[in-house]
Amino acid sequence: MALSLVINHWHCNMLTQYHLNFATPGRDIINITDNITQCVAQANVTMGLCHIFLHHTSASLILCENADDLVRRDLEAFMLRLVPDGDLLYQHVAEGPDDMPSHVRTVLTQSFLMIPITNGKLALGTWQGIYLWEHRVRSHHRKVTVTVQG
Amino acid sequence: MALSLVINHWHCNMLTQYHLNFATPGRDIINITDNITQCVAQANVTMGLCHIFLHHTSASLILCENADDLVRRDLEAFMLRLVPDGDLLYQHVAEGPDDMPSHVRTVLTQSFLMIPITNGKLALGTWQGIYLWEHRVRSHHRKVTVTVQG
Amino acid sequence: MALSLVINHWHCNMLTQYHLNFATPGRDIINITDNITQCVAQANVTMGLCHIFLHHTSASLILCENADDLVRRDLEAFMLRLVPDGDLLYQHVAEGPDDMPSHVRTVLTQSFLMIPITNGKLALGTWQGIYLWEHRVRSHHRKVTVTVQG
Repeated sequence: MALSLVINHWHCNMLTQYHLNFATPGRDIINITDNITQCVAQANVTMGLCHIFLHHTSASLILCENADDLVRRDLEAFMLRLVPDGDLLYQHVAEGPDDMPSHVRTVLTQSFLMIPITNGKLALGTWQGIYLWEHRVRSHHRKVTVTVQG
Repeated sequence: MALSLVINHWHCNMLTQYHLNFATPGRDIINITDNITQCVAQANVTMGLCHIFLHHTSASLILCENADDLVRRDLEAFMLRLVPDGDLLYQHVAEGPDDMPSHVRTVLTQSFLMIPITNGKLALGTWQGIYLWEHRVRSHHRKVTVTVQG
Repeated sequence: MALSLVINHWHCNMLTQYHLNFATPGRDIINITDNITQCVAQANVTMGLCHIFLHHTSASLILCENADDLVRRDLEAFMLRLVPDGDLLYQHVAEGPDDMPSHVRTVLTQSFLMIPITNGKLALGTWQGIYLWEHRVRSHHRKVTVTVQG
């Protein structure tokens, strides 16, 4: 293990908050990296952190491989098998067979992400993308708050 | 996607930390939203972030639907089926049949949450609540640190 | 529930960022607590937050019990059973039977952690350690960015 490229004592005195709205097409894993990158660019921060928060309990935010669409296809296939719709285990069924599974999927993944900003840019790895995972079968409006600090 | 309601360049120069202690009744999903809301109110921050950290490896913090108690009942039922107590797979069994499952449940969920503060309030979605999930069968004392910045 | 030990209005005006590199031996759960502790000590912050970010989609960061090596052994055994290598469900198979499972494992765990700093130290619980979980079977170089604020 090696420490390197330490930037000491940068002043942290700015917080900028953005409120985004997404219309999802129903169950899908949607790339929102460009939307977040745009917020960071506008906030004009050299070094800091970017926090992304989803205000819902039946959709998730994830960091996922960004090159091969089959990864998202396989991820959804895995989750559908792990947390099947219409599972007879559930008693919370009034809102449909995909509702309780959506809450479970959300708890097994993330509702927020926090990503470093380095040299003025979101410091994602080469293969990392930011995705909004809609778990409900029908389309929904989803609200995301981005807080940039640095 | 639309950007809206941008609050630019708020000064971030305050950090306030609170140390909370919870006595859990044993395995249960406990609503602690009011406790966290109280910390944020006391910190008196207009815009910022609220970080919540659980200092344990056999309990979790989750964001979950807050309206129907059956959701928490179903969530516990799902987790009990996915990570059964007394699983013969485990070698770490000295502390009881619910101990290693509690570590697994913790790794599959969250030990910390971070939620935006907007207009002086914790910006949770309408259906989002903050829950402490005790995974051990017997009651425990659980320590939570809340750090408010803004 | 009781509030205690409130430290009000600490000035937050420093951000320090460290870039670490780890060579993993292949699939394993590696204790990196000392490396992170070292960053926090160097940043010289009394109260604040430490953010740890992994720039990869086939390895994870987790908080896990730090006393009994069997816990990590059992955790790996559980994950191997839940997300088996070579699963016929997957279409993203070009990079080997452990590649898509590594992406799934990452999404089910964490790519970043955020831990409070109290009295100048990383405020981990007694039994909490910070681990880098290499999911790929072969050794990899893994990049971690640590951002300390306070």
